[in-house]
Amino acid sequence: MNVLALSGGVGGAKLALGLSRCLAPDELTIVANTADDFTHLGLRICPDLDTVMYTLAEISNPEVGWGQQDETWQCLGALSDLGAESWFRLGDRDLATHLVRTERLGDGQTLSHLTEYLCEQLNIQHQLVPMADQSVSTQVDTEMGRFSFQHYFVRERCEPKVTGFEFEGIEQARPSPGFQAALVDRAEGDDGPIVICPSNPFVSVEPMLALPGVRTTMVDSHRPVIAVSPIVGGEALKGPAAKMMAELGIEQSAMSVANYYGNLIDGFVIDTVDAELQPMIEQSGIPTIVTNTVMVTLADRIQLAEDVLSFAATLRS
Amino acid sequence: MNVLALSGGVGGAKLALGLSRCLAPDELTIVANTADDFTHLGLRICPDLDTVMYTLAEISNPEVGWGQQDETWQCLGALSDLGAESWFRLGDRDLATHLVRTERLGDGQTLSHLTEYLCEQLNIQHQLVPMADQSVSTQVDTEMGRFSFQHYFVRERCEPKVTGFEFEGIEQARPSPGFQAALVDRAEGDDGPIVICPSNPFVSVEPMLALPGVRTTMVDSHRPVIAVSPIVGGEALKGPAAKMMAELGIEQSAMSVANYYGNLIDGFVIDTVDAELQPMIEQSGIPTIVTNTVMVTLADRIQLAEDVLSFAATLRS
Repeated sequence: MNVLALSGGVGGAKLALGLSRCLAPDELTIVANTADDFTHLGLRICPDLDTVMYTLAEISNPEVGWGQQDETWQCLGALSDLGAESWFRLGDRDLATHLVRTERLGDGQTLSHLTEYLCEQLNIQHQLVPMADQSVSTQVDTEMGRFSFQHYFVRERCEPKVTGFEFEGIEQARPSPGFQAALVDRAEGDDGPIVICPSNPFVSVEPMLALPGVRTTMVDSHRPVIAVSPIVGGEALKGPAAKMMAELGIEQSAMSVANYYGNLIDGFVIDTVDAELQPMIEQSGIPTIVTNTVMVTLADRIQLAEDVLSFAATLRS
Repeated sequence: MNVLALSGGVGGAKLALGLSRCLAPDELTIVANTADDFTHLGLRICPDLDTVMYTLAEISNPEVGWGQQDETWQCLGALSDLGAESWFRLGDRDLATHLVRTERLGDGQTLSHLTEYLCEQLNIQHQLVPMADQSVSTQVDTEMGRFSFQHYFVRERCEPKVTGFEFEGIEQARPSPGFQAALVDRAEGDDGPIVICPSNPFVSVEPMLALPGVRTTMVDSHRPVIAVSPIVGGEALKGPAAKMMAELGIEQSAMSVANYYGNLIDGFVIDTVDAELQPMIEQSGIPTIVTNTVMVTLADRIQLAEDVLSFAATLRS
């Protein structure tokens, strides 16, 4: 069995870690969104990929979920003293990742290759791959104009009202070799599920689904696709997913997430606080389980991963 | 009066600071060697220029003379964890300089322009300019083969025996606009001296002199040229100058430095411990003064600067 997990940043990384504790290294491929990548101060930065990588390496900052634990900010202070942009929180240890990445990409290495190298250095056993080796850049259209994702997310603190999104470069991009291989059943009878982690459907998951061929391949793969709702009690645990829903005129609820994924998914996972939504979602044709999806402890992450995998075993695509 | 000071790294920077305390901002131009610049982990690094800049900004590390005070090394530790080269001591605060430089050079700014910007941000009043805007790269030929300067100096700890030097790119390089302007008398009657700071003659000063037109312009400028010996009691206060002399078959003494500069200089400054050399150097036709050249305190730096300027006032090119 090979489980394929699609993850954005912090929330997705938590479930990815849980899955990595339930599955052997050859049983799990984690694909990270790279459409929020950007070039800042000459450095190529992959926020979601790094969040998942640091989480799997168990060196992530446990308080905020992104960046590294015991991080320091000396370089950022000096950048600010030199009049350079300092709105993006570049930690001193985190910088090393960006330096190595930027140098190696400049030398012509692919992001897949480089990610494999970094994971090896950080003793990550499971396979973590970027969604694509080509650059895709999420643009957020708002009432205050268009922002590239990190500018919207970090610099503007998600304040401008969202009107839409564009994934620049998506048509020219292709699923990375690792993503593609995990999408297509590797062996006959491999019915390992595809897990859509509790990440922002619009800007974290959608770019992965929007890559040429991905939706079709997911449907054709005959593997059950299960999504975990990132909306709990009408709120996003982290990030602007719920705020975006309101601005886009979508009801802020787990039900809307299920509707958003629609016939792509074969199963849906909601939190206990949303238990009342279960009959409605099932009525719309999507088998749904109710469990604890708020992952505070490592045990929570492992428990949710186990719940998702057990649920998957009961489903057929 | 406009004084022009040519400086390498730590030793030269000390005298440059002393001069900056004796002269108004419009009376001093400091030119830093940039032939030891290199690109490392994708970053453009200018060790001598930065040493002088940090020294003038009074943020340099007082113990080693290079880098910044209260520096931390988190990024370097993380680079090492990622298997990246960590032999070059990149401090966290220092990194900010390299990031800003690398980004702006990449955007097409000249090193002169960028240095002016950085000096402004660091509240440096006096003019500090790179020797050239084009890349010049010192190659050190040794019995163990050829090394670029920082590889010889830092990675190999100056251990390989030196047989010669080449300044790659020197023919295509030109004195930077600030260097050129300060070389040529700006106004008639400007007899401000040219001060060769106590830096390594072979690898710190020579690249500046070897730039097309510099020697001729120095001689034609009719401004007295005074060099301060970096060799005191037969030893270099810092760096491999004395070791290089031995390996190149040159006597390790201040006398050899005077001979090396020869008819380029109109005056020479040696340390009190070398007082006995004064008659010999003067006999070779170079007016020489004896004073304290070991600059431990700020007062020492200012005193030496005053001595050099007073000496210059007695000389004509």
